[in-house]
Amino acid sequence: MPETTTILYRGGVFMRAARFYDRGDIRIDEINEPIVKAGQVGIDVAWCGICGTDLHEFLDGPIFCPSAEHPNPITGEVPPVTLGHEMSGVVNFIGEGVSGLKVGDHVVVEPYIVPEGTDTSETGHYNLSEGSNFIGLGGNGGGLAEKISVDERWVHKIPDNLPLDEAALIEPLSVGYHAVERANLSEKSTVLVVGAGPIGLLTAAVAKAQGHTVIISEPSGLRRKKAQEAQVADYFFNPIEDDIQAKVHEINEKGVDAAFECTSVQPGFDACLDAIRMGGTVVIVAIWGKPASVDMAKLVIKEANLLGTIAYNNTHPKTIDLVSTGKIKLDQFITAKIGLDDLIDKGFDTLIHHNETAVKILVSPTGKGL
Amino acid sequence: MPETTTILYRGGVFMRAARFYDRGDIRIDEINEPIVKAGQVGIDVAWCGICGTDLHEFLDGPIFCPSAEHPNPITGEVPPVTLGHEMSGVVNFIGEGVSGLKVGDHVVVEPYIVPEGTDTSETGHYNLSEGSNFIGLGGNGGGLAEKISVDERWVHKIPDNLPLDEAALIEPLSVGYHAVERANLSEKSTVLVVGAGPIGLLTAAVAKAQGHTVIISEPSGLRRKKAQEAQVADYFFNPIEDDIQAKVHEINEKGVDAAFECTSVQPGFDACLDAIRMGGTVVIVAIWGKPASVDMAKLVIKEANLLGTIAYNNTHPKTIDLVSTGKIKLDQFITAKIGLDDLIDKGFDTLIHHNETAVKILVSPTGKGL
Repeated sequence: MPETTTILYRGGVFMRAARFYDRGDIRIDEINEPIVKAGQVGIDVAWCGICGTDLHEFLDGPIFCPSAEHPNPITGEVPPVTLGHEMSGVVNFIGEGVSGLKVGDHVVVEPYIVPEGTDTSETGHYNLSEGSNFIGLGGNGGGLAEKISVDERWVHKIPDNLPLDEAALIEPLSVGYHAVERANLSEKSTVLVVGAGPIGLLTAAVAKAQGHTVIISEPSGLRRKKAQEAQVADYFFNPIEDDIQAKVHEINEKGVDAAFECTSVQPGFDACLDAIRMGGTVVIVAIWGKPASVDMAKLVIKEANLLGTIAYNNTHPKTIDLVSTGKIKLDQFITAKIGLDDLIDKGFDTLIHHNETAVKILVSPTGKGL
Repeated sequence: MPETTTILYRGGVFMRAARFYDRGDIRIDEINEPIVKAGQVGIDVAWCGICGTDLHEFLDGPIFCPSAEHPNPITGEVPPVTLGHEMSGVVNFIGEGVSGLKVGDHVVVEPYIVPEGTDTSETGHYNLSEGSNFIGLGGNGGGLAEKISVDERWVHKIPDNLPLDEAALIEPLSVGYHAVERANLSEKSTVLVVGAGPIGLLTAAVAKAQGHTVIISEPSGLRRKKAQEAQVADYFFNPIEDDIQAKVHEINEKGVDAAFECTSVQPGFDACLDAIRMGGTVVIVAIWGKPASVDMAKLVIKEANLLGTIAYNNTHPKTIDLVSTGKIKLDQFITAKIGLDDLIDKGFDTLIHHNETAVKILVSPTGKGL
């Protein structure tokens, strides 16, 4: 069908949205509801999680968000752009040509913006597409709004037994899933997760659900307690008091098969490189703000694999399955639910200043469910 | 057969050997010829190359070599130990139970010392065996001696069309081969080799022989000239004068599939990480004496693979094949042939002080062939 075939969905009706203007400047605006173009699905957003990336944009941005001088090259958008990329919702409109979904379906969004020509098939590594970005950061609307229109490709139906609030965590869970995929583990491996913040917890949860032995190293007692309650690991150590390397080698004499760096600090990385066995893998999951010092001789002599991991591709069906089959319980990671007006005060501020107890804060853009 | 079944081979006869006593202390000694135990092969060494690792032991050792306080845990040896691990020779004696070789065979040695229980089969990753070491460093004799006895497993027959002098380069070629293996390249990939010292040249030679497009970055004009003469690459750039990143991206818009770090200096590594495409691989081939600074955010956003590579496993038959079929010409890398008495003055000193023109210096322990 021609690109220009669009259907105006309740055009002219306003909705509320949290929009990024610039570093430190996020506003709750009244904006036009999005139209649903051909090939798109209209969604009433139920819940949207606040991600560390959103905090980075607020504190240090624009990073993924565009600026007036640097419009997003794919969407063409400049600020303000709607935020939020961890969203669940209910289909409210089906665009022309969409056949795989129907009004009323519960869905999550895989929030990709990819350049034309990107292989978005089930074998496509579209996360490696140069210039790719994310809905809710680079444009195309966002989950911190009452409604969003999304290309059918990026909308995943969820089963009835997966509540919409938990479903908002499918996106960060996919980040953890892909990190574990990157490590290319054999069955019944032993892994170390350094740092039990939100992504560390979800990465550990995936590894545990896949049957691996999981060791968590986390200095915060509150975070360790959360990890223990959530049963995302088999061992929980405090790197300030415990000799992590001794503990790791007690559990697995040769060292762990893989270590996941979820702290973005030097001692976290060093612990990973020391803990892996010969030929083992360190996956860098955290986003580092400064360079790390890497002992290259150790990397070489261990024939180590030091791997970056960025987002995910084709993981949403797999993470939806892990949760709907009960292998991962996401409700325990939801530590607060707030409305759009409380986004900064009760959302961002809590995550910035109380990050030992807050894991995932969900926002209800309409206020429903609060 | 019982472990104690040994046959004394010309026992009590002396031979000359270069032995490592300590840092800065290598001596040419008269020592007993080695006995050939059951399962071993006696070899008259024809040629033995001097490796950068030998220089490291001389300048900064003991590293792989044992010390009086730290005997090699497998061989039990303390200094002095015979040096030399890049050797070719002629079989002069067959130990009890050896069936795959005969007297007169031309051979090369894959110089491994591995712990008991190591999987040394054709699928074994015995280079990752903790505590493994090398003949000619950790004990069990060495190639810088007139004779050596080696377990049959580590002796590879070479075809008649592969001269013994060139065959001494099979070992360092295997290092390059394994480095390229580590990159797990698809057919017709594009790779960057940073640094055209001996290992850089041999790594480039393997990649070129496998049909990949090879780019070399090397500041020394003399080394670039050698690389050009040897035709180990398609492009030869000078990182002091050329904008390597611009050149690389002219050749391959998205960046190279893999980059091989063969310099052990920071700008060399940085060039590699900048040159690779999204999802690309950097293989650290050089042995670094100090930590590197790694831009973890770049590693993550590119979803890069930063890989160590240590020695090789099961590559000798493949490198022998590459050379005997004419796909790699090794004679051009032999820049001098010397006798054992000239080891330090004409060997080590030349490699340390004239490393722009010297590639591989071969030693004839008996003086034959000089």
